[in-house]
Amino acid sequence: MLTVEGGSPIVVGDLVTPGAKRTIAFYAHYDGQPVDPAKWKSDPWKPVMRDGEGNDVDWKTAKTIDPEWRLYARAAGDDKAPIIGMLAALDALKANGIKPSVNLRFVFEGEEEAGSPHLAQYLENYPKILRPDAWVLCDGPVHQSRQMELFFGARGTIDLELTVYGPVKGLHDGHYGNWVSNPIVRLTHLLDSMRDVNGRILIEGFYDDVKTTSEAEDAALAKIPNVEADLRREFQIGATEGNGQSLNKRLLLPALNVRGIEAGHVGEKASNTIQPEARASIDFRLVPNETPDSVKPLVERHLEAQGYRVVHETPDAPTRMKHPKIVRRGLSARAHFA
Amino acid sequence: MLTVEGGSPIVVGDLVTPGAKRTIAFYAHYDGQPVDPAKWKSDPWKPVMRDGEGNDVDWKTAKTIDPEWRLYARAAGDDKAPIIGMLAALDALKANGIKPSVNLRFVFEGEEEAGSPHLAQYLENYPKILRPDAWVLCDGPVHQSRQMELFFGARGTIDLELTVYGPVKGLHDGHYGNWVSNPIVRLTHLLDSMRDVNGRILIEGFYDDVKTTSEAEDAALAKIPNVEADLRREFQIGATEGNGQSLNKRLLLPALNVRGIEAGHVGEKASNTIQPEARASIDFRLVPNETPDSVKPLVERHLEAQGYRVVHETPDAPTRMKHPKIVRRGLSARAHFA
Repeated sequence: MLTVEGGSPIVVGDLVTPGAKRTIAFYAHYDGQPVDPAKWKSDPWKPVMRDGEGNDVDWKTAKTIDPEWRLYARAAGDDKAPIIGMLAALDALKANGIKPSVNLRFVFEGEEEAGSPHLAQYLENYPKILRPDAWVLCDGPVHQSRQMELFFGARGTIDLELTVYGPVKGLHDGHYGNWVSNPIVRLTHLLDSMRDVNGRILIEGFYDDVKTTSEAEDAALAKIPNVEADLRREFQIGATEGNGQSLNKRLLLPALNVRGIEAGHVGEKASNTIQPEARASIDFRLVPNETPDSVKPLVERHLEAQGYRVVHETPDAPTRMKHPKIVRRGLSARAHFA
Repeated sequence: MLTVEGGSPIVVGDLVTPGAKRTIAFYAHYDGQPVDPAKWKSDPWKPVMRDGEGNDVDWKTAKTIDPEWRLYARAAGDDKAPIIGMLAALDALKANGIKPSVNLRFVFEGEEEAGSPHLAQYLENYPKILRPDAWVLCDGPVHQSRQMELFFGARGTIDLELTVYGPVKGLHDGHYGNWVSNPIVRLTHLLDSMRDVNGRILIEGFYDDVKTTSEAEDAALAKIPNVEADLRREFQIGATEGNGQSLNKRLLLPALNVRGIEAGHVGEKASNTIQPEARASIDFRLVPNETPDSVKPLVERHLEAQGYRVVHETPDAPTRMKHPKIVRRGLSARAHFA
């Protein structure tokens, strides 16, 4: 059990193979997403087995197990399933008398869903344990084809919160519309300056560190079953980003996802107001060689190049008066294995 | 008392001047905005007089009335104040023995804050009463200089609600970001195609009907006190739209105000999701010669010219699959005197 102050413990288990020189670590996390029981069909804390139609199944007394049955409980899939999978694999190794040629290490984290706030400190405090020869990160979906899959890696995440300012109070647009700047419009233009509708990031230098795939990687990519037509039907989408490039090619590139935008109200609650501010939440997906520290200055420079004064707190009156365009930015790097 | 089915009554009072051939009608509305008592310092339904510092004043026993005192009560300003003003003006006419040379008509509406949903029907049902020789619309703020002001007119309003669609359910952007189209980004691009950051509407033909000001109007505009520096300080804005054009010039042009935008969440509540939809609420301010009927086809054509399939209901699966870009639009004209 590894601990750091204020953090949830990391649980480590070792299976040492005599004479082995390398250690392979298997990562999973034992924490789950916040749960809203009102959105659950049954108590999320009491596991229930259901068949493909969603009907409860008494699996303990069943003669056979239907592979389409699923266990429903809070965090049963993400990320308890891999832990159970590891135990089953160990049982299978033992039952078949197979001895691994490497040391096996099992590392279960407890803060993944919170953005792993103490992981950097764990890595610093426990370098011998947490820097094995290789990691296998067991947190992710099964491939859509249901075939087993080994990932090259996973894109990291950095969050960016943007707030663009208009007048210090909401104003009637009948009286001031067309003269007082609209912060929503400024924000939409700012977002559009950052990426195009095809997913291409327009921030200068963002692709400089992106490395091209190797021949071995290209060959591996070519063997992945094509599930795109099925996905398009499932998601009901008439077109994809990236001018028809394959999903797997697209996942090898950095991405800028606008995950939320908020200002004023829409529909019945909307009022004819020039809003005082508009906010957007972005997450960047980063690829090998890109780090939060390498992209932060690129983002900062981009905002400034659009004529924005970049601030990190709500601007005061003199700041608002002095700068025609102001954006508050928050950037937080999170060690996300997703 | 004028009535139509389902509508709040319109109250009409006439002061007939013998021999007068013309009738001037004074409009005000007796309804108010929805009230949230929790946001009030005192009961909104009990009028309270306060001085310039916000302290309660016992005005009934005061020897003199300070002109900086204000009466606080729900809808006391918008739009009861003009009604009291009219009564005071009538009292003043009578006290000074002044007889108007025209018939006076007072028309008080009860649904202005709800968008005057029955006003068109009232105008149709009561043409003799509601089509006087001239209207004076008494609903608007005092000029910022506190001088008396007579408006040329008021811009009308038409609302536009836009919904842009992504995948039919929220998707993890680590798995699908860069391949499944992001509806927020589509919406920001669509909005940006409709107006620039300077307030210029980019919808083809939108300025075709806009008439230029007459010499008399230009002369009147030139006499309005310039309050722009004061306003910029009050609103704490470092720049205005329209490349430095004056507020009054800008109010003579049509405007496109994005009054609300919503998709996903920002800040702590944000999640790494490709959202299923993104919504924006717009209101257009229209000038003489522009009507809801004249701009509706321009808006529709613009959306289609951006490659969007325009729908009026939530699209079904075949529609979603067939069209790369889908927008649902709602357009509602409201007779707004503001």
